[in-house]
Amino acid sequence: MTTEKIRLIPLGGLGEVGKNMMVVEYGDDIIIIDVGVMFPDDEMFGVDLVIPDTNYLADKKRRIRGILITHGHEDHVGGLPYILPMLDFPPVYATRLTQGLIQVKLKEHRLLDKATVNVISPGDQVELGECRAEFFRVNHSIPDAIGILLRTPLGNVVHTGDYKFDYTPIDGKPADFGALGQIGNEGVLVMMGDSTRVESPGYTPSERVINDSLDKIFANAPGRIIVATFASLISRVQQVVDTAARYERFIAFSGRSMINNVQMAMELGYLNVPKGMIIRAEDINKFHPDQVVVVCTGSQGEPTSALTRIANQDHRLIRIAPGDTVILSATPVPGNEKMVHRTINNLFRLGAEVFYQGLSNVHVSGHAAQEELKLMLSLLRPRFFVPVHGEYRQLVLHAKLAYSLSIPEENIRVAEDGDILEVTEGGIELIEHITSGNVYVDGLSVGDVGQIVLRDRKVLSQDGILMAVLTVDKETGQPIAGPDIVSRGFVYMRDAEELLESARERVLESLIGLNGHSSDWAFVKDKIKHTLSEFLYEKTHRRPMILPVVMEV
Amino acid sequence: MTTEKIRLIPLGGLGEVGKNMMVVEYGDDIIIIDVGVMFPDDEMFGVDLVIPDTNYLADKKRRIRGILITHGHEDHVGGLPYILPMLDFPPVYATRLTQGLIQVKLKEHRLLDKATVNVISPGDQVELGECRAEFFRVNHSIPDAIGILLRTPLGNVVHTGDYKFDYTPIDGKPADFGALGQIGNEGVLVMMGDSTRVESPGYTPSERVINDSLDKIFANAPGRIIVATFASLISRVQQVVDTAARYERFIAFSGRSMINNVQMAMELGYLNVPKGMIIRAEDINKFHPDQVVVVCTGSQGEPTSALTRIANQDHRLIRIAPGDTVILSATPVPGNEKMVHRTINNLFRLGAEVFYQGLSNVHVSGHAAQEELKLMLSLLRPRFFVPVHGEYRQLVLHAKLAYSLSIPEENIRVAEDGDILEVTEGGIELIEHITSGNVYVDGLSVGDVGQIVLRDRKVLSQDGILMAVLTVDKETGQPIAGPDIVSRGFVYMRDAEELLESARERVLESLIGLNGHSSDWAFVKDKIKHTLSEFLYEKTHRRPMILPVVMEV
Repeated sequence: MTTEKIRLIPLGGLGEVGKNMMVVEYGDDIIIIDVGVMFPDDEMFGVDLVIPDTNYLADKKRRIRGILITHGHEDHVGGLPYILPMLDFPPVYATRLTQGLIQVKLKEHRLLDKATVNVISPGDQVELGECRAEFFRVNHSIPDAIGILLRTPLGNVVHTGDYKFDYTPIDGKPADFGALGQIGNEGVLVMMGDSTRVESPGYTPSERVINDSLDKIFANAPGRIIVATFASLISRVQQVVDTAARYERFIAFSGRSMINNVQMAMELGYLNVPKGMIIRAEDINKFHPDQVVVVCTGSQGEPTSALTRIANQDHRLIRIAPGDTVILSATPVPGNEKMVHRTINNLFRLGAEVFYQGLSNVHVSGHAAQEELKLMLSLLRPRFFVPVHGEYRQLVLHAKLAYSLSIPEENIRVAEDGDILEVTEGGIELIEHITSGNVYVDGLSVGDVGQIVLRDRKVLSQDGILMAVLTVDKETGQPIAGPDIVSRGFVYMRDAEELLESARERVLESLIGLNGHSSDWAFVKDKIKHTLSEFLYEKTHRRPMILPVVMEV
Repeated sequence: MTTEKIRLIPLGGLGEVGKNMMVVEYGDDIIIIDVGVMFPDDEMFGVDLVIPDTNYLADKKRRIRGILITHGHEDHVGGLPYILPMLDFPPVYATRLTQGLIQVKLKEHRLLDKATVNVISPGDQVELGECRAEFFRVNHSIPDAIGILLRTPLGNVVHTGDYKFDYTPIDGKPADFGALGQIGNEGVLVMMGDSTRVESPGYTPSERVINDSLDKIFANAPGRIIVATFASLISRVQQVVDTAARYERFIAFSGRSMINNVQMAMELGYLNVPKGMIIRAEDINKFHPDQVVVVCTGSQGEPTSALTRIANQDHRLIRIAPGDTVILSATPVPGNEKMVHRTINNLFRLGAEVFYQGLSNVHVSGHAAQEELKLMLSLLRPRFFVPVHGEYRQLVLHAKLAYSLSIPEENIRVAEDGDILEVTEGGIELIEHITSGNVYVDGLSVGDVGQIVLRDRKVLSQDGILMAVLTVDKETGQPIAGPDIVSRGFVYMRDAEELLESARERVLESLIGLNGHSSDWAFVKDKIKHTLSEFLYEKTHRRPMILPVVMEV
């Protein structure tokens, strides 16, 4: 029996950048594409990570046939350790390098023996209930990235994953144009396409252009060379290794995730380092500066990363000397600009020569620009199109671009997380919106930090807190001791003794004549709160959180 | 008598972007150039504004001959209302538009009758003790910007202010090349030059290129057009007015600072709007959408600005309808990207066509790119050079650029806020470093928010606070009531009753056998703090601020 519809339910990555997760439903079968995380923004005070809300799947676990992973970046695999247990560990399918990266993660979370991660290759087929998944190679800023063709009885569903077209990729494996052409010829019912870089005209340059920049920098570097990049950007590491080999430099790796990923990529054959070229970071001082390259983490200015420590003269092993060269081979992720600039400024202060994006050609994007997006749409020629992976404006711009290629307006749908799209032979409709959104990981727990806690953290961060503690007689309701006034993050208490003493007096005054209500502590607390709030705003124009505590003895 | 040295003491703007303030000392004379503010970054929780630390001047007030202002942007004039009173109101010198903008500010702070702001024009001379200041016109993203030539008995000091070279500026007044050439011929002892855009190769385009973009957008806009830009960018407002006139649209202004600045600029003749063209924002619905342009604030996504309210459907008067066009004629200031993107996404959601930097040519910078920096250095040919206005890396890059133009390395000094540079006939040296840095304005008070308060706000913002309140008998030291545990921003208390109850028990246990120390409350508090901190980290991996309060009765 063929069911007459396919449902697409984005749980993450549509209307935002990060935590990508797409649910595809056909009949009784549910197939999930990617389970990513997002890094918290400034408003998510104290949150460590954000994962998709998978509540929609809670009563549908037994229908999940598999999770297909397009590539090994955090925003595509980072949610697995949290969400696999919630979904009773459905089988995961990923290419070899991606599987390696996932295993590193699962190991950290002690989930290796519970999860099943099957290795697939481009061209493989996987039966998933009534559907069949196939995989085609795409280029991205990590090797072994794939797009997905999901054959359903109603028609073919294609998800591009993150991609760009690189005719000369570092690993020598361009996107599979033949497969894409064939899929297009066969017919695509609905296509989901990466929108991340839709605002950029033209083509994203090949990873290979980095070679020339690296070569020029290496040729002129008198001292040590330190290259910071994403730990998952294995192909960039390969480029640095190749250049280092040409200039007869030894190479050391620094940063936990860099060391782990490099080791895994070498074991799996995704990174080739000539024998004897690797030295330990502990040993770099045994070599002349012009014999050494260090590849490390910290291209985003992350506070505890290797490069940030180096820039702060806080690294256990590596010290910058004038004449050293630092290359930041990455672009700041939006929101990280200030931290990255701080790192660069500190490196300049230490006398390093610093090359970074904007000043020098040391990074290219992994996402398709406008002409590549048009190429993908033209190869696949889908009946229906759903832009994915992007903020709302980017989804709309991608939709307009598809429209400019003659896909009819009614066949294109801009959807956001939680929208349920229904695809039939006849059309594509947004039929429902379910609860979706952010689940916060903070410390050990997942999901217990919600809007109330975050709102409180925001208030606390703005003007601090002021507590008034009062002890009253249980019988008479009369104040026995206090109010004691304590504040944090509001004013420096030693400087503000007079202000706080006046506040104390105000509270006492406000309590006079309250005997009638003596045991109605909620009323008393409200009174204290109101009095203090008004008084402090008048005196300081600040609004600290005010917390009255009444103790009965 | 000529004294043999000039001292340059940057109090703001060197090693950072914002709060520009430069002190020049010759003999007994002190001349100040600009008194700006900086907007707080993410780490300055709850701070409203940041101003320079002027402690260095506290015992030198009577030597201050004047404050020279280069132009009317916040990072050059915004500190005046706070710092003029601290310095006993020395006379201020500014061009006409700049004076107008300063007066608006002083009025808000009720300082109009205390401060003296003298209007000067390019070419004017002002005697300041033994020195004489002259002013030359430069181009910047605000009209009436000047650079300063300060003639001292030892030699000429030049400060460029913020500048670019615009051969076809909107106000028809290009930089005064003649004056610059003549100053160069006469000889410049030391030059201070704007470094903001040193990372950009080539030339900054003329403001005039915006005209073509505006024209194209206006020609195709079917509905209302809303243009958001900086309220001080009077020349951009003029461009919008001119385009609106060409397309026979009425114009309304929205946003308090936009309305104030437009009115002042019109009164002073810096903005020309054809008669009858202005309508009130209240009246825009009386006109056909294609007859209306709104110019408003909010190009930085500021939460309470006009455009942000419009994007949130929260504006009192203006509602977006599909077919409306919005132009963000500004670049996000670093750190504001997320807020700007949020605004753009919301405008897309409302069905507006949105034009913004990156997608469309609707803004140009007001600062000189590399070729213009070289031009300025070549016109002035200074003996000594000090890069100003920029983060550390930008100052170094500007220094390298000057070196590439054959200024000897020893004649160039990269200095940061608080460094004292001494210039003599023979050389330029960094002789001392004084305390400088940030003074925080928070609510009504200036300077009382320091590192301790900010550190507390940071801790509070990450994991919240947990208080344990204990009442003890004054005589015996025995607990009478409590500990009561209250938390905010840590966990949602209703979900965490069990955790907090266990925490309570832990505190009680930890107090057993403490009788010997009964009245040593500091010891008891430390014990409570330590116990809770360990327990909560073990259970949650979070580190809330812990505040024990002991009440004696």
